[in-house]
Amino acid sequence: MSDEQRDPRGSSGAAEGGGSGQAGRDASVTPAAQLPELDERGLAGLREVGRGWAGCMPPRQLWERALPVDRGLEFLGSEPSRSGRFLEIRSGPPGAQPDELEATAQAGEQDSPVGRLAYALRRALIGPALRSSALAQELMGRALALAVLSPDALSSVAYGPEAMMAVLVLAGSSELKLSLPIGAALAVLMLSVGLGYRQVIRAYPHGGGSYIVASDSLGAHWGLLAGAGLILDYILTVAVSVASGVAAVTSAIPSLTSATVPIGLAMIVLLVAGNLRGVRDAGAAFAGPTYLFVAAIGLVSIAGLIKAGSHGFHPVAAAPHRAIETVGVLLVLRAFASGATAMTGIEVISNAVPVFKAPQAKHARHTLTVMMGLLIAMFVGVVLVAHFDGAAPQSGQTVLSQIAHDSVGGGIPYDFVQLATTLVLLVAANSAFNGFPRLLYFMARDGYVPRVFARMGDRLAFSNGILVLAVPAAVIYAGFGGQTEPLIPLFAIGVFLAFTLAQSGMVAYWLRHHDRGWRSALATNLLGAVLSGAVVLVAAATKFAEGAWVVVVLVPLIVLACRRVHAHYQRAREALMPRAGQLSEGSPVRRVTMPPADLEVSERLAEAQADPSQVSSFAVVPVAVLDLAALRALAYAVSLAQPVLAVHISPTEEEAERFRRAWLAWGDHLPLELVVSPYRATVAPLANYIEALHRQRPDVTLTLVVPEIVVARRWQRILHGRIAVRLRAALIAYEGIVITTVPFHLPA
Amino acid sequence: MSDEQRDPRGSSGAAEGGGSGQAGRDASVTPAAQLPELDERGLAGLREVGRGWAGCMPPRQLWERALPVDRGLEFLGSEPSRSGRFLEIRSGPPGAQPDELEATAQAGEQDSPVGRLAYALRRALIGPALRSSALAQELMGRALALAVLSPDALSSVAYGPEAMMAVLVLAGSSELKLSLPIGAALAVLMLSVGLGYRQVIRAYPHGGGSYIVASDSLGAHWGLLAGAGLILDYILTVAVSVASGVAAVTSAIPSLTSATVPIGLAMIVLLVAGNLRGVRDAGAAFAGPTYLFVAAIGLVSIAGLIKAGSHGFHPVAAAPHRAIETVGVLLVLRAFASGATAMTGIEVISNAVPVFKAPQAKHARHTLTVMMGLLIAMFVGVVLVAHFDGAAPQSGQTVLSQIAHDSVGGGIPYDFVQLATTLVLLVAANSAFNGFPRLLYFMARDGYVPRVFARMGDRLAFSNGILVLAVPAAVIYAGFGGQTEPLIPLFAIGVFLAFTLAQSGMVAYWLRHHDRGWRSALATNLLGAVLSGAVVLVAAATKFAEGAWVVVVLVPLIVLACRRVHAHYQRAREALMPRAGQLSEGSPVRRVTMPPADLEVSERLAEAQADPSQVSSFAVVPVAVLDLAALRALAYAVSLAQPVLAVHISPTEEEAERFRRAWLAWGDHLPLELVVSPYRATVAPLANYIEALHRQRPDVTLTLVVPEIVVARRWQRILHGRIAVRLRAALIAYEGIVITTVPFHLPA
Repeated sequence: MSDEQRDPRGSSGAAEGGGSGQAGRDASVTPAAQLPELDERGLAGLREVGRGWAGCMPPRQLWERALPVDRGLEFLGSEPSRSGRFLEIRSGPPGAQPDELEATAQAGEQDSPVGRLAYALRRALIGPALRSSALAQELMGRALALAVLSPDALSSVAYGPEAMMAVLVLAGSSELKLSLPIGAALAVLMLSVGLGYRQVIRAYPHGGGSYIVASDSLGAHWGLLAGAGLILDYILTVAVSVASGVAAVTSAIPSLTSATVPIGLAMIVLLVAGNLRGVRDAGAAFAGPTYLFVAAIGLVSIAGLIKAGSHGFHPVAAAPHRAIETVGVLLVLRAFASGATAMTGIEVISNAVPVFKAPQAKHARHTLTVMMGLLIAMFVGVVLVAHFDGAAPQSGQTVLSQIAHDSVGGGIPYDFVQLATTLVLLVAANSAFNGFPRLLYFMARDGYVPRVFARMGDRLAFSNGILVLAVPAAVIYAGFGGQTEPLIPLFAIGVFLAFTLAQSGMVAYWLRHHDRGWRSALATNLLGAVLSGAVVLVAAATKFAEGAWVVVVLVPLIVLACRRVHAHYQRAREALMPRAGQLSEGSPVRRVTMPPADLEVSERLAEAQADPSQVSSFAVVPVAVLDLAALRALAYAVSLAQPVLAVHISPTEEEAERFRRAWLAWGDHLPLELVVSPYRATVAPLANYIEALHRQRPDVTLTLVVPEIVVARRWQRILHGRIAVRLRAALIAYEGIVITTVPFHLPA
Repeated sequence: MSDEQRDPRGSSGAAEGGGSGQAGRDASVTPAAQLPELDERGLAGLREVGRGWAGCMPPRQLWERALPVDRGLEFLGSEPSRSGRFLEIRSGPPGAQPDELEATAQAGEQDSPVGRLAYALRRALIGPALRSSALAQELMGRALALAVLSPDALSSVAYGPEAMMAVLVLAGSSELKLSLPIGAALAVLMLSVGLGYRQVIRAYPHGGGSYIVASDSLGAHWGLLAGAGLILDYILTVAVSVASGVAAVTSAIPSLTSATVPIGLAMIVLLVAGNLRGVRDAGAAFAGPTYLFVAAIGLVSIAGLIKAGSHGFHPVAAAPHRAIETVGVLLVLRAFASGATAMTGIEVISNAVPVFKAPQAKHARHTLTVMMGLLIAMFVGVVLVAHFDGAAPQSGQTVLSQIAHDSVGGGIPYDFVQLATTLVLLVAANSAFNGFPRLLYFMARDGYVPRVFARMGDRLAFSNGILVLAVPAAVIYAGFGGQTEPLIPLFAIGVFLAFTLAQSGMVAYWLRHHDRGWRSALATNLLGAVLSGAVVLVAAATKFAEGAWVVVVLVPLIVLACRRVHAHYQRAREALMPRAGQLSEGSPVRRVTMPPADLEVSERLAEAQADPSQVSSFAVVPVAVLDLAALRALAYAVSLAQPVLAVHISPTEEEAERFRRAWLAWGDHLPLELVVSPYRATVAPLANYIEALHRQRPDVTLTLVVPEIVVARRWQRILHGRIAVRLRAALIAYEGIVITTVPFHLPA
């Protein structure tokens, strides 16, 4: 940990970035990140281990010649294949080395009717597998990028103002007028944070979300904090966006209200399916809803303001609400914190700089500026129109639906607004399905979450991350009955925690990098950090009892879990790294010889022996009945040129005698130990006996050669003991015990 | 199958009886039955295989000397043990051969805090483990045997008469008088079947249930039919006895009626727990309820008859019931079939002849006679008293409770009758927990049900059979809401099917064995068979729609399933048996030599090679990262004196290059194949590649040596790929592929 804090850019865990060695925290994505790489220290260790091998190995070409098979599979060309499966490996791509092969798309297909059906279904649902090379992204121009990257931010207008008003109305409908000054303060906040993210783009032209920026500038722990905030943020974004999208539908069609939860869950399923297909195809399709929504809000705002102007900008009185709280600083702060949810998603563009056409940073900054302008305009428009229109939060109809109705009337214009709102919210939820797996990918690359999250599915989507996002989001959505309002208190904290850390990271960055204009950039980011931090504190303090405590508890827990994962990977990496100066000393070099012969005593425990001259082993074969399966296992064990001991566990003396008779009939070719188990346990005494043997010579590898009967039909498994499986479970905890299963296949 | 029909006593499947070779179908029980034994044919095959080994093996004493460990564990005596586990194997019992060890009772204990706690709990609940030698049964005198073996039969009086009356009352309460002639017919039936079972005892002095008698005399199929009937019978006995026992309780304490189902389930749990402890301790404790029940029914009968006599044996009119059916042959037959449930359990004594003191058969026949006398007397007494008392089935109170109330009045005598009834019904249900696992044991010994049912738990109880009985019984009990009546139609068929087959078996037996008095014995059994068979037909026909169809469908299904299991074991036995004249021909004898060297082509597929001169193998080592775990697996593979090939699956070309660099740094000591998998699958292409290699030389064993990272904590498993597990699953279906996992343990 301390190592990492000193050099946050460098070796920060089990998984360092690409092979290039630099750019440990860049935002590029490669399927190879799942495989940890050896650094220079590891390679040096490897060289030293290799010298140990060189001293005891027969010449290299002998090994090549000894192979009884054609490892290049050149025979495949001529010979007809039994099933399609053999066609799935072919010679490498043009220009590849001769010892390289390539797997085909069909490599995942199972060779059974059920397997083939499952494969066909999978392909029909999520499309054909994509080559890793398809990852090279189509670059986007400004207009497309705006449409694809902004729905998360812009769609917040659909619930942010309403969330603010829902707090104010608690003090009576007359206090809804406070939405004007609070809205203005939020607009200032948006401006400030937006300007701050322009600086992020400048400093991280390869893309940097809050996690990367905070990790990089402030250290791994702060990055983790931002990551934990974002994880919750993404989950809540899906839940809130879907809830809000369904609310737009049910506002227009009240008869669907009773189906709120099923409709939302269906949307989430749709999003999962679409994202498992990979999002490459979808880019352009997402442009529609964004521009439609901008047009819709523009329409509502302008029509609403014209209407208000016709009344001399005299606000219509809202339907009276009984005040259940009095106006005070606390209420205003709560309304402010709720309204701040309108800012979710503004960090998306700074994360995604690499998708822009060159010059990337310039285009990205321009697009961010446009987006923030639109966001502020739309937010202010909605707040103003709602004010003049006398709209107030009510169940059954959203504020946006109310003002749309009052501004543009019913009929097609209203339906258009509601449809655009629903679509953009769905697209916003979808953007979480992009961002969340990417975040987990970066965290997995750094070793903070399980490595499977760095794994790309065969459509180049991070399938694991998609599923891990969808399940909690669906649970939360259904658990809160599809309502937006109770989710709002949980929402703001994670978002603004990430904002704060990203902005603070930029402050730290500018203190180190005195680029041109760094002072004003620092000031911008400092302001953003302070304001965002204030929102975090306000939100946590004023909404603690309403649900924010969940986030306050979960964020540190997530950080803690990530640190434990990281510590494990760190230790694993240390334990697994070939180390120079540590190996091949002490133990004498011994040519690989043919046992049976007395084994020398090694100075190393079995698992520390890294070259074959150090490895010696003997085999123990548990035999229940001296049948062909057992004989095959014994023959196999003997063929491995190591000493062999057979063990039989007997429930009774008589049975032991019976077994001995069979053993003698066979010819008593090998040492045999009979263990009578008068309490009839089989696996436990066997495991204990093997452990006792191994304990005598921990420097000698004990190979347990287990005959395993393999049945042709799954149901037949219950007809045979699962000794091999249970032995494995009992003995896997002991070092230096190798377990070999020798299958014997029964006919169907 | 035909083989077995010709000689039903002889080799009828995978599992023949004890080592003595005779008594293939005797009723003795030994833990060794779980291990199938080789017959003479197998031993002959073994000798021939052994000759093949003799030609290629180094001398026996070399093998002994080569062992690096003391296999007798003599070091244990002096050395202090790290944990208690090493004390669990000790030198054999006095008189055992020197190469024999013995496991202790603690051998099942797990060496972890949770494991130790689980062990302590288990021991506290079901008691300390019992040695197999404790199986030697305490023999019983007549009085004790009557008490222990008769509850099943005698307790049927608690529900049989009521079941009969419940049918008659459908024709109106006036038709309850028909219970007298029907009861008389049932008494005749009891007498006949009872006499028939006296003959069973004579012919099977070692004990023979319906399954054994029918298998033995009529052939395996008929035995299976009896077994299937008995399986259902036992399950229903538990459900009906518990339901009837709870009814006795709720008749006395009506406020408990709402808790019928929980009370019954608690009773079943109690029975399971008691039986998992083993029933050895319980014998004497069961004597009480039986004699109490006999006394209670005697009391009720005598008091009731005295009361009836005081009215001049003029029946009291039963409370009027509206007739919903008319009297007819069908109704009478249904009442007869329902009343026949009073006969369940009369076969118990003939199954259990070995528990009697010598002369066993004489004592058993005497006890059976006494039991049948008691049964008939109690049955007739209850029917008569119910008739004179004007009792009629009603919900909320059993007939037995009504006549007890009317005969002995309320208060302590009544409570005594109800208590005795409940207790004897519980003991009867308990007897099913004895009989069912024993039946499954015999069927498992003959290979008709999975072999685990021949396994005795560490309390010498057949734990698996106990659990398999309890679950369906509890489900049926709860599913029918704890009511006795709807279960009755299902009940009679299985019982009388078993009776019929046992009696028919005896007919066949006497036709073959002309012992003294065989003609009269034959006549007795013939009468029993015909009458029992008639009951089966009547019950199946008249109660088909009421639920009997379930039994009519299930019995053939069970028979079919048993036959499939048996066919599998049969084929497995054939496939596994060392066969003379089949092995070691064709392939040239080759001394075990040291690869790398060109491997000869064998004429046998890998799995058919039964001696080491025929086995040759090469190793494939999948390597993801060239870390210490992988190096250890490579070193181990090389130390086995076989050719080695390393395989690496790469998601991208770049990663493949990276891996090649590490490989070259190490020294390129072994052949390496790189497979680029541009669709990012790992296991599928690896499995396909290995399969393609193996297909080239199916005569050479392919040993897959998989490095496996073993974590110290369970939760850490999700942090590492489960390649080894998934590879095993993918490749286990292929013959001749041995899978070896070389563990590498990470620190905690």
